[in-house]
Amino acid sequence: MQEAGRRRVTVETKILSRNDRIAEQNRRWLAEHGLAALNLISSPGSGKTLLLERTLERLRGRVACGVITGDQQTDNDARRLTGKGAVVRQIETVSACHLDAERVGRLLPEVAPAGVRLVFIENVGNMICPTGFDLGERMKVALLSPPEGEDKPLKYPSLFAAADVVVLTKMDLVPHLDWNREQCRGYIESMHPGVRVFEVSARTGRGMESWTAFLEELAA
Amino acid sequence: MQEAGRRRVTVETKILSRNDRIAEQNRRWLAEHGLAALNLISSPGSGKTLLLERTLERLRGRVACGVITGDQQTDNDARRLTGKGAVVRQIETVSACHLDAERVGRLLPEVAPAGVRLVFIENVGNMICPTGFDLGERMKVALLSPPEGEDKPLKYPSLFAAADVVVLTKMDLVPHLDWNREQCRGYIESMHPGVRVFEVSARTGRGMESWTAFLEELAA
Repeated sequence: MQEAGRRRVTVETKILSRNDRIAEQNRRWLAEHGLAALNLISSPGSGKTLLLERTLERLRGRVACGVITGDQQTDNDARRLTGKGAVVRQIETVSACHLDAERVGRLLPEVAPAGVRLVFIENVGNMICPTGFDLGERMKVALLSPPEGEDKPLKYPSLFAAADVVVLTKMDLVPHLDWNREQCRGYIESMHPGVRVFEVSARTGRGMESWTAFLEELAA
Repeated sequence: MQEAGRRRVTVETKILSRNDRIAEQNRRWLAEHGLAALNLISSPGSGKTLLLERTLERLRGRVACGVITGDQQTDNDARRLTGKGAVVRQIETVSACHLDAERVGRLLPEVAPAGVRLVFIENVGNMICPTGFDLGERMKVALLSPPEGEDKPLKYPSLFAAADVVVLTKMDLVPHLDWNREQCRGYIESMHPGVRVFEVSARTGRGMESWTAFLEELAA
């Protein structure tokens, strides 16, 4: 794989530098429009969409939001998120395992009409590749749910090192799992000392107050 | 991204055709040695390692096994799987989000000394890219756990279309979730009509008998 590997690195470097350039354009556009964008990254099924559903419901009438959601296929997530007061657009990536700055940038004006303050970007479920593609976001938010185990921060260090915020989702399931909260929090802290961590259950509402208070502050 | 995109496709086609060639070598090597290899693919945290732990314990003394396990970082999984009678090797992929035929092929002779009949390859947690990289395996096994939701087969159609077997893991959690078994089974069936599905809980042991009976048959 030497030769192909070397060529691949070169091409990926070009793609990434082009992506970084467009991400900077997105970042400027967002700043000019007074918008904060959050890039939500996690494993498939750690609860990004349900967290967003409950978040949009709680922010409705208080902070205007836009949403871009990515999946390999289906517009299921966009449909789940529609009707909660936010403009929602879906990107179907087909073979790509991450969103990129160009596809996101094209949708930003659509999901962020005048008045919108927060843009949520729900990335493709994957803990590796989305981390490498800057979208121009203000913050990367890593989600992790207890059923996935304690050690994901060690196994996917680049995500947890890059994340500005970590949200532990599905906390209502903890009594039914062999999951060690202190150990998991310790692993997160070891990958990213001082990172802010929220513990929530979108289903029961636990912890949602402080999460949405944080978002309101960000939007202010 | 037009120009870079086109070049990337060309390079990836080369990498994939090279990978396919090595996968064929692996497949021949496995056949010559009377080995069946299973490529386990799922989201991070759907329980591949615990399923393998319990599987190795049950097969011990009945079917000799080898294991190759991949992660972005850490040898946690290899450590968990050691001491159960199988030779275990870890691949740390660092930036890659999938295993490839070459890295797996190099380890096959190590994990499969004389007498071994089954080789488990625990791929990197990711539902997209590992599907595209043939490792020379006899079967792709897709794992899915109820906490991840019902609709993953629709969102990640290439994995479920390619999988020879689907294992629904963590079935002990179902009473604590809003998870619709019939809907999930329907989605799997729609992506891959007639695919064999096992429902197991590695924690309680439920369903493990028929899963290991299937593996013993495969090894016979």
